[in-house]
Amino acid sequence: MRFKAMIHTSLKKSVLDPQGQTTLHALSTMGFREAKSLRIGKAFELTLEAADRKKAETCIHAMCDKLLHNPVIEEYSFEVQELS
Amino acid sequence: MRFKAMIHTSLKKSVLDPQGQTTLHALSTMGFREAKSLRIGKAFELTLEAADRKKAETCIHAMCDKLLHNPVIEEYSFEVQELS
Repeated sequence: MRFKAMIHTSLKKSVLDPQGQTTLHALSTMGFREAKSLRIGKAFELTLEAADRKKAETCIHAMCDKLLHNPVIEEYSFEVQELS
Repeated sequence: MRFKAMIHTSLKKSVLDPQGQTTLHALSTMGFREAKSLRIGKAFELTLEAADRKKAETCIHAMCDKLLHNPVIEEYSFEVQELS
């Protein structure tokens, strides 16, 4: 079975996000005073083959732990969707 | 009213994603043969103040068009959620 996963990695709340702060400041100076906070992370759009949803999720956790995210400063979350 | 928006920018399908291809190749050499395709984009977690949901969405479109995404090679999508 083929699955599509959207994986988000973002900096932990306790970690400073200079890219987000700079972009928020830029928005503010451009007149977008509505923006109150901004944090920037990565979005991975992954297609994978697995026997079932549980195996797909186990595989994604392993990929995140071993390559896609830095456990020291980042956290991750994902959503899996079955492709027909 | 306060809203939280998750904005995703990703390279257009027609644009090569070398970061995604390199990461996919790394996953493959690490033994994750389940991974079939991977594209990497950015995820913006934005908090904003707006009078209503429609005004919040208009504001987010303007922010994306003017700063957050590069219309030549990227596309964006977002989800807005009202904060209590």
